[in-house]
Formats: sequence, structure tokens, C-alpha cells
Amino acid sequence: MAYRETEKMRQRKAQARNKIIECTWECVAEGGFRSARITRIAGLAGVATGTIYRHFESREDLFAEIFRLATQREVDKVAEALSVPGNAVERLDGALRKFAQRALKGPMKAWALIAEPVDPKVEQERLVYRKAYASLFEKAIQDGIAEGSLSEQNARLSSTCLVGAISESLVGPLSPTQTNTTPGNDNNQDELVNAIVCFCIRGLTDSRS
Amino acid sequence: MAYRETEKMRQRKAQARNKIIECTWECVAEGGFRSARITRIAGLAGVATGTIYRHFESREDLFAEIFRLATQREVDKVAEALSVPGNAVERLDGALRKFAQRALKGPMKAWALIAEPVDPKVEQERLVYRKAYASLFEKAIQDGIAEGSLSEQNARLSSTCLVGAISESLVGPLSPTQTNTTPGNDNNQDELVNAIVCFCIRGLTDSRS
Repeated sequence: MAYRETEKMRQRKAQARNKIIECTWECVAEGGFRSARITRIAGLAGVATGTIYRHFESREDLFAEIFRLATQREVDKVAEALSVPGNAVERLDGALRKFAQRALKGPMKAWALIAEPVDPKVEQERLVYRKAYASLFEKAIQDGIAEGSLSEQNARLSSTCLVGAISESLVGPLSPTQTNTTPGNDNNQDELVNAIVCFCIRGLTDSRS
Repeated sequence: MAYRETEKMRQRKAQARNKIIECTWECVAEGGFRSARITRIAGLAGVATGTIYRHFESREDLFAEIFRLATQREVDKVAEALSVPGNAVERLDGALRKFAQRALKGPMKAWALIAEPVDPKVEQERLVYRKAYASLFEKAIQDGIAEGSLSEQNARLSSTCLVGAISESLVGPLSPTQTNTTPGNDNNQDELVNAIVCFCIRGLTDSRS
């Protein structure tokens, strides 16, 4: 009996934890990390603020977990888009396009994940994920060099340029998404995605070849 | 007399302030913002920690000021490099190269200014300066389109891609400068600068033209 009780408690604890995570993500998706105040999350989750701190040592730890979960989903999408048939240029074009389209569909989420000034703990996680994206792109660029669809280049450096160019232009503070886009205007968004992906693909492609 | 006393006090205050700024920048240039602890700065400047807080409301305010001063110097250098004679592609090439070379010469400084996870107050300043770089590049790209050295493109978006690509690849956590460069190896550094500038210029240049 003692064992089953423990098991039940564990389940309940896990459920409460998931609920907190879910509600935090809801806040972040709506207004970024800055709008995810603990009192608000507690209210949404229907728990006391103290309960949140039983599950997460600090607000920063909670945010870091949210960040990991949400970013891993995005990294998986890019990995998926890179694993389709086709040459490397086509696959990179598709993956960059997918990344861009998802970011434009949820600009606040994308901003929170990529550019929002947050606690150093979240910034550290962010570095890990930037690396994950860059590694995926690097592998594809190496494939492209090997198969001849891309010319000889420093694949790691090019992948890093891709991550920088796409994240800055899509969801950075300089991005049109942060300044003057009319959300829901699909034509504008398509143009934006095209312009960014073109810059990136041109950057990879030797114009003299 | 009362007036002259006040003037003297003002000068002394300004001197102390400058000394604090100087010593903070010394710490930052050596080990990033994280290594610039108030006690250390106070020690270097030969003042009590309390004195620092008489000049700056908080450590964050001090950092934001340091950040503004140091970054403005870099922005000025890029502006200078863009104002030489030549067509836009040449001027952009020169400016990107200058930015890259300066960053590689002082990688810790560059990392602190561009990529180090810091307090949100500094992050906010960072956004202002990213915008300053992007505006300079945007103007040059527009010149290039007007004179015909660059093909028609969304100048703002391309400038944002430039800022992202160069800052990520040069001093971002993914950059070779953060992982496996041998500092002082000029050949490596030249190769690095070349690869980054090439990616950027290719990104701007229509390979079909």
C-alpha cells in the first residue's frame, strides 16, 4: 500500500508540474518571458505560488525548462525538414523556409525563444540550441560539398552565418516582424521568407561556379 | 568662492566617474561583464564600493554606460569604413572586414559587447546598437541598388541578415573564436575574416546577374 501511495503522489506531482509548464508556456507565447510572472502562472495553473517553487527552484529554472522544451520542438522540425530527399541546397532551402514560416506564424513565441532579453540562465540554454541548429546546417552543407551542389567552403562558419542571418532577420529586434509587419498579411510574409532564404542560399552558393 | 568650490567638486566627481568607467572597461576587456565585480572595480579604481553607487544607481546602470561608450566607438569605425570612396560592394566589403578584424583583435571585448549573456538592461542597449549597425549597412545597400552595383533587394532585410551573420559567426558562442582558434595565428584569422565577408557579400549579390 505504501508503494502505491507513493506512486500516486508521484503522478500527482508530475501532473502539477506539467500544468505549471503548460501555463507558463501559455504566458510566454502570449507576451514573452517578461509577461510570465509567477503570480500569473500560479493563477492560471490554479496553484499557490509556493507550489511552483516546490517544483522549480526559481523562476529562472522554470524558464530554462520551458525554453528547453519549446526549442527542442523547433530543432526537431528543422531536422525533419533537412531529412527529406533532395540535394543539400534544396534541403537547406526547405529547412530555412520551414524555420522562417514557423517563426512568422508565432512571432511572439519565436521572439521569446530567440531574441527576448532574458535571464542569463535562459541565455545559456539559448547558446546550446543555437549550436544544435548550426550543427544540423553544418551537416547539410558538408553533404552539399561532398555531392557537388555546394562549392568548397568552411561548413561550420557558413552554418553559423546562416543561424545568425536567419534569427536576426526573422525575430531579432531589427526584424520587420518586430517593427512594421501587418500580421496575417500572407503576401508580405511570403516576401519576407523569400528574401531571407534567398540571402542565406546566395551566401552559401558560389556565384562564380 | 562658493561657485568655484562647486566647480572643483564637479570636476573631482567627473574624474572619479571616469576612473570608475575606465576600470570597469579594463575588467570587461579582460574577462567580460561577468568578471567585472563591483569590489574588483572599486579596488582597481581605488575607491570604496559605496562611491561607485554614488555615481551609478546600480551595477546594471554602470554596465549599460560602459556598453554604450564602447559600442559607439565600434559603430563609428564601421561608419568611417563605409564613408570611403568606392562602390557600395567595395565599401561594404571594407566595413565588414574592418568590423571582423577589430573583433578578432579583441575577442573578449567583442564577445562582451555582442554576445555575452548579460543583464536585460545591457541587452536593451545592445538592441539599440544592432539597429545602428543595420542602419549603416542598409544605407550602403540602398546606395548599391541606386548605382547598380547591387541588384534590387529588400535593403533593410539584407542589412539585418548581415548584422546577424557577422555577429554570430565572429563572436557568437558558435564562432571559432569561442571554440578552436589559436589566437595570434594571423593566417587563420585572415581565412576566417575572408570566409565571413565572402558569405555576406555573396548574400547581397545576385548570382544570376
